[in-house]
Amino acid sequence: MPRIDPASVRLRTTTTYPPPYDAEARGRSALMLSDAGGLSQFGVNVTILEPGAKSSMRHWHENEDEFVMVLQGDCVLVEDAGETPMRAGDCAAFPAGNPDGHHFINRGPAACRLLVVGTRLDHDIAHYSDIDLKVTITPEGNRFTRRDGTPYPGKGNTT
Amino acid sequence: MPRIDPASVRLRTTTTYPPPYDAEARGRSALMLSDAGGLSQFGVNVTILEPGAKSSMRHWHENEDEFVMVLQGDCVLVEDAGETPMRAGDCAAFPAGNPDGHHFINRGPAACRLLVVGTRLDHDIAHYSDIDLKVTITPEGNRFTRRDGTPYPGKGNTT
Repeated sequence: MPRIDPASVRLRTTTTYPPPYDAEARGRSALMLSDAGGLSQFGVNVTILEPGAKSSMRHWHENEDEFVMVLQGDCVLVEDAGETPMRAGDCAAFPAGNPDGHHFINRGPAACRLLVVGTRLDHDIAHYSDIDLKVTITPEGNRFTRRDGTPYPGKGNTT
Repeated sequence: MPRIDPASVRLRTTTTYPPPYDAEARGRSALMLSDAGGLSQFGVNVTILEPGAKSSMRHWHENEDEFVMVLQGDCVLVEDAGETPMRAGDCAAFPAGNPDGHHFINRGPAACRLLVVGTRLDHDIAHYSDIDLKVTITPEGNRFTRRDGTPYPGKGNTT
């Protein structure tokens, strides 16, 4: 049935950020909804941020659009220009290629839930705004490097 | 700012279904979120179903993935095999090319809100399961025909 059985939805709790950035993913998890539903063209997850957690290192995508809706709780959206408070029902959109990195931080006392949608393309590069890191995304996997292309150990996803 | 200003979000209340199916869209509206946010690779809207309204005529897409999350209220998901009750938090996924048409009907006394995501491709065909209708989607617009290709008057969107 197309209705997604909640018991079939994987809760991702790991990160593949290379050290020392892996420690920045503490308190973040994600319900992988579109994987459970068999979709391939875009990804949908519910990202859960415990108090103090962030959605990702601040980044932007060369090729893929992103959309976020706050489902529950409060957080702040951080960009080049500063911080924007976000609460349940608020939405944000990040068109591909706009080089203004973003992430969401839960500075409150309660968990926050974000619905996150992103295109899934065969090739993309995401740039991290505040650290010497970028990631190249291909069907074979994701490859983290420094900005100058020097490899980092490990490989993984962009969030 | 990437945060979407609610005042900038268009509420679509019209339909371009050809008669007599245009009457079936009564009580349905949609907040066009991804348009307001400048996204092009996938569409995101919040579809609002008043009591008795349906999300669309029952249909499936040849090429585009679809995802739905119930944000508020109750409805039923209708497919070939029958009806599935859906309530806030429930999700459903419709991978491209699965020829099992779907739509959502609000049979309750209160409004229902659905978050709807769909890929935006340059070419797609949607087939309507219960009526003599299909639609061809191109950058030049959408063209409704009978199943045998005979044109219907009017043209518009697939939902």
